[in-house]
Order: sequence, then C-alpha cells, then structure tokens
Amino acid sequence: MKKAFLDYIHKLQEKITTSIEDIDGGARFKEDVWKRPEGGGGKSRILENGKVFEKAGVNTSAVSGVLPKSLEGYFNVKDSKFFACGLSLVFHPKNPMIPTVHANYRYFELYTSDGDLKDQWFGGGQDLTPFYLIEEDAKHFHEVCKSVCDKHSSNLYKVYKEKCDSYFWNHHRNESRGIGGLFFDYLKSNNNYKIEDWFSFVTDVGNSFLKAYLPIVKNRKDYKYSLNQKNWQEIRRGRYVEFNLVHDKGTLFGLKTNGRIESVLMSLPPKVQWVYNYIAKKNSEEERLIKVLQNPRDWTT
Amino acid sequence: MKKAFLDYIHKLQEKITTSIEDIDGGARFKEDVWKRPEGGGGKSRILENGKVFEKAGVNTSAVSGVLPKSLEGYFNVKDSKFFACGLSLVFHPKNPMIPTVHANYRYFELYTSDGDLKDQWFGGGQDLTPFYLIEEDAKHFHEVCKSVCDKHSSNLYKVYKEKCDSYFWNHHRNESRGIGGLFFDYLKSNNNYKIEDWFSFVTDVGNSFLKAYLPIVKNRKDYKYSLNQKNWQEIRRGRYVEFNLVHDKGTLFGLKTNGRIESVLMSLPPKVQWVYNYIAKKNSEEERLIKVLQNPRDWTT
Repeated sequence: MKKAFLDYIHKLQEKITTSIEDIDGGARFKEDVWKRPEGGGGKSRILENGKVFEKAGVNTSAVSGVLPKSLEGYFNVKDSKFFACGLSLVFHPKNPMIPTVHANYRYFELYTSDGDLKDQWFGGGQDLTPFYLIEEDAKHFHEVCKSVCDKHSSNLYKVYKEKCDSYFWNHHRNESRGIGGLFFDYLKSNNNYKIEDWFSFVTDVGNSFLKAYLPIVKNRKDYKYSLNQKNWQEIRRGRYVEFNLVHDKGTLFGLKTNGRIESVLMSLPPKVQWVYNYIAKKNSEEERLIKVLQNPRDWTT
Repeated sequence: MKKAFLDYIHKLQEKITTSIEDIDGGARFKEDVWKRPEGGGGKSRILENGKVFEKAGVNTSAVSGVLPKSLEGYFNVKDSKFFACGLSLVFHPKNPMIPTVHANYRYFELYTSDGDLKDQWFGGGQDLTPFYLIEEDAKHFHEVCKSVCDKHSSNLYKVYKEKCDSYFWNHHRNESRGIGGLFFDYLKSNNNYKIEDWFSFVTDVGNSFLKAYLPIVKNRKDYKYSLNQKNWQEIRRGRYVEFNLVHDKGTLFGLKTNGRIESVLMSLPPKVQWVYNYIAKKNSEEERLIKVLQNPRDWTT
C-alpha cells in the first residue's frame, strides 16, 4: 500500500505540474529535493511569477520514524512509530477572478515501537477559495467532486462536503476560508470498505483534480480586473494566511514533525495585505462573497 | 491600582499617538471604540498610509468577566473571574531602514467566582524588529531600556532582555523575530517588590518608549532605499506574521477571550510577501541581519 500510494502521488505530481506549466505558459516549476534528518524526505515543486500563477506549489513527501512526543496526544497513542506520505498543492493565481485552490491526498501508518503495523488510513480533499463568486465555477468544482464520490457511494459527497465546510471554518473570523469541496480523514478499513477501497477512492479524487480546476482557470484567466479587485484579492489572501497559521492541522503537523519549513509554508500566498477593519461595500461583489463564506451553500442542487 | 493603571495607559495612548502624528506629518489616527459582549471594551487608534508609517496601531483595552474555559489551563485556575487592561502598539514604517516596533504594558487581576481578588500582576515590554541592522540604533534602543531598568534595580535589564530574546524566538524558523528589548510577565508582589513598585517600573518603561524609538525614526526616515530593500522588508514582515499567528501568547489571548479581532490583529503588517525559500546573498546586509537574529547579541556592553 505504501509503495502503491507513493508511486501514485509521484505520477500525479508529474501530471499536475506539467498541466500547470502548459496553461501558465510563462514560468516553470523548480524542484527541491529534501531529506528529513529523522527519516524520509520530499520533493517540492514551486512555480513563481508565472503569467497565470503568481505562486504554485506541488509537494510530495514521505516521512517516517518515531512519532514526535508533541503528536502523541493528537493521535492518542504512546511510543509509536509512523509513516506518512502525501501530495499537497496550493495555487495562487494572479487574476483575482480565478480562485485559489488547495488539494491534499495522504496516507498514514502507525506502528508499535517494535514496528508492527497497528493502524492505517487515508485522508485528504480539495477545496476552492474564490475572491469573486462566479457561481458557474463553484458549481462545476463541486459537481466534479460529487461525481467522483458518487462512483464509490451515494452518501460520500454530502458527508465530505460538510466536513470540508466545517474543517476550513476560520473561527476567529466567523467565516469559511473558501467555498469548500471535499475533506476526509481517517478513512480506515471497516465493515463496508477495505483499505484498498479507500485507496481507490482517494486516487480517484486525486485524478479528478485537474478536471475540477483547470476549466475554471482557462475560462477566467483573460478576464480584465482592476487594481481595487487585485487589492481585494490580497486582503482575502490575509484570511488564507490566518487560517493556515492559526487553525490548519496540516501546517501544525508539518511544524511539529520537523518537516521542511519552506515546503510546509509554500501554501502561503506571494503578496498579502492587512488593511485595518476593511468592510466590503453594501451590495458589492465583495460583500456577496463574504455572505456565502458566512453561510456555506449547497452547490450541486 | 486598576484605576491608576487605566488612567496611565489612556494618557500614554494620547501622548504616543500625538507624537507619531507629528513625526508622520501625513496621516492621522482614526479611533474605534468597541465593547466586548462579555464585559469591558477598548479604544483602538490606527493610522494607515502615512508619510513615515505604512500602518501604526495604538490600542488600549480593559476586559473583564468570567475567565474563559480555554484559558483556565493557561493560568492553572478554575471558575475564576478576571480583569485585564493594557496598551499595545505596533508600528510598521514605510522606510525599511526604520525598524518595526512593538510595545505592550498590561495589568491583570484574577478573582474567585465570588469576586475576591486572589492574584494580580503586571506584564509587558518593548522590542525592535529591524530589516537592516544599524548598530547605533540597536544600541540606542537597548540603552534606553537598560537605563529605565537600572533606576529600579541593577539586575532587571539582563533578566528582561534575555526573556525578550527567548519569548520572541520564532521556533520554526530558528531565529528571533527581532533584536529584542524588554519582556516581563507575572510581576507580582514578593519579598522585594510591592505591587506598587511594579506599577512604578512598568509605567517608567512605558514612559521611555518614545525616547527609545523616536530618535531612530527621525534619523532614518529620509534614508534612500531601493525596491529590493522594500521587497526584503515585506519578506521579513512575513516572519513577523508567522510569529504573531503561530507563537504569540498575546494574540492567542485576544482570540480566546473573544477580543475584538480587528484590534487583536492590527499588529499584522500592511503588505507582506512570501517568496519560496528566499536566501539572503552571502555577505550581504540582509545576511548580516539574519546572523544577528540567529544569535541574539548583547547591545549594551
């Protein structure tokens, strides 16, 4: 399973970075290979200052070793070893009419201190963070998410869509980070699913990513935008930073397992603004976005 | 004591905002008065897009009520009431040759659920975050800090200077947020000091703030700088955000006590960049700064 999923995420990384370079047409990904002193390492690919993407990162990593003390409480175990691998991506487009996107597909194994496997699960998801709400795009993204879930079971989309809305809730702002998508974790073998079924599910979701996101990029990349709209994008990116640094468990995991800091924090946007007490104008497009973030909507009905 | 310190921070807020407006000569502070639903409130003063300061905030607040559950562990108490008041300021200058500065002077009381006072203490400090290291300025700031400490006791500066270096340590970057200053907390009555002595100490430190910072602003505000130097400032501001959102207990306290979010987060810089894996050139001024942040130095000997 480890080998199969590692193989999968490396191929997916290749496929996604190639497609993004194609559509960007300006910049190329640079690759950094890094090792974790305690075991494992990763391969980070970052594109900066492209024509379409201001910053895009697609990282794969596979880390292992003794589970750090600081994470024992989190998993409710003691004296364990672990293996974790996954692909994480965040794209920050230049044009504020294109949403920022995030995706993560990961696999985790826990062992006793003797190295016997005691638990294994998949996790991940994909979600969209628009700066301007183009309903057609929100629907398209969610419909792709739904159709890949429906292939596996008719109840999965509803559950993982709701988990996504609740996970990416930016508590201190009382609003969602974006308009969601899918979020799932602890996908373990049980009465209904074998671990191989979850492998099939998670890899299907990963395979749907480009189909969910690329058409949006293609349709919006040549839209005109004003300096005010660009400023709004940079202010909203501030909320993205706040979520990732204050609430995101993935970032926390990276910082606590002595992950490679630059890879963990590649999710942070290239240019960000904090304007004191910025309030969107009444009945503006900016206010319309905020309202949807405060009250997550159903996009597939 | 509550009344005396509240009175003090309001006067200090007035004095500091007036001085900053004078030296800025461009923008004025705007005041927001807010109330906390659970008790108390504050007065935020923010200046944006000035000639000298891109963003400057000087907040006072006095909050009280039942100590939130989420903070009981932090103070190691149960079923308590509290009162907290203080002044917080953060100035983000435009010119990267002027350091960012932060200061906080605060007073805290804990009560039993019946309202009997069971503990009281002062805390606070002031610290400098330069983008380029001008040694003369670092020395000046620390010398003012030292001389105000020495008035009260010859050992205070050393202790609070070291506490400052350790508090503002940006763990995940393995460097300090800035070049320090003073940091102190839990200043309680004991064999050597009455609570009134700490009142006198903390208010003396607050009174030294303008003397410590303004001469630096005056001396550097007309320095020329390049676009590269401005970019470096914005990249370093990213580290400031990381510290405040990941490690800072004051920010955490604000978020957990349902403080006014815009006032808690006024510390965040106006414009920030995250450039992937930015490494300062060998033997550059930028690298010289990093080296001092990695190895905090003694500035008064």
